[in-house]
Amino acid sequence: MRDEPAPSPVRILGIDPGIGVTGYGVLELTHSSPSLIEAGVVRGGRGSLETRLLALHEGITDAIASFRPTAIAVEELYSHYQRPRTAIVMGHARGVICLAAAQAAIPVYHYAATQVKKLLTGNGRAPKTQVQMAVCQEFALSKTPEPPDVADALAIALCHAFLDKGNRNRQQAIAESLGRATH
Amino acid sequence: MRDEPAPSPVRILGIDPGIGVTGYGVLELTHSSPSLIEAGVVRGGRGSLETRLLALHEGITDAIASFRPTAIAVEELYSHYQRPRTAIVMGHARGVICLAAAQAAIPVYHYAATQVKKLLTGNGRAPKTQVQMAVCQEFALSKTPEPPDVADALAIALCHAFLDKGNRNRQQAIAESLGRATH
Repeated sequence: MRDEPAPSPVRILGIDPGIGVTGYGVLELTHSSPSLIEAGVVRGGRGSLETRLLALHEGITDAIASFRPTAIAVEELYSHYQRPRTAIVMGHARGVICLAAAQAAIPVYHYAATQVKKLLTGNGRAPKTQVQMAVCQEFALSKTPEPPDVADALAIALCHAFLDKGNRNRQQAIAESLGRATH
Repeated sequence: MRDEPAPSPVRILGIDPGIGVTGYGVLELTHSSPSLIEAGVVRGGRGSLETRLLALHEGITDAIASFRPTAIAVEELYSHYQRPRTAIVMGHARGVICLAAAQAAIPVYHYAATQVKKLLTGNGRAPKTQVQMAVCQEFALSKTPEPPDVADALAIALCHAFLDKGNRNRQQAIAESLGRATH
């Protein structure tokens, strides 16, 4: 008789897209709670739109190659931005992020900001600071990572860890650490 | 005494971005009028957003490699779309197009639809069919290329040919063929 093979680790790369600064965070799901592997930002620089997209695509491609995620969770843009032009420019950034994921053949999951907020704080309209506090608590961080885009990316990764149907076995532990009831 | 070297040809790749169908058209500027080198579409297919972006990026990268443009002209998205979500998704497509240009180190020029329409028809609010007719006239085409995204892309390339400051010497001929006064 052979032992049951250990399930391959689930690694989630969460991304908070931006044209200037894009936050990312990598979680690994074990049998217990999710563990924080790495987090940081990719900066697009101050050049033209094209050169900023190039830097962003390279940065995300590098992060994928380094951390080898099994899933990528990206925050959706909301269409009621006060400045529709900003939403369009952000769409450009999100496009090259999704492209980098597709080029590496890693599945992409899209989450609305309200879903992320609701999961982490219980309130879909919670202020950003409250989401950041929840992330700090989850990973026992003494202070919010800087810039705030990092915590936002970790929140998106946590959201995927909790909501993805493929992770049912690990969700009880995550739900407990977030103080949530599972469905 | 040596002869003055012939100016290197200016090749413009015009692109009308779309998430389903992206039109492209390639012009070459000679001393006389612009000549049509090639035109067609890149189709994103019917898969997920990511796979459609991947197909679009590959198609535009291939077009750049085949036609070796010296400039890429891309239509800007306008922020007063009736459906803001459509504008955001289109932003994704435009992002991977701009990325393909930056990866090939080819300068990108952005033109508003109203600029293109005004240049080709004299009216910034002209209907699309009128712009398409102007393109057919310019290149002596007996009928509008199908799908209409092709003519739209050629219109954007013509707009760049006319407005780019680097093409001053060739603009008189283009202006005459378009029935416009030069500035």
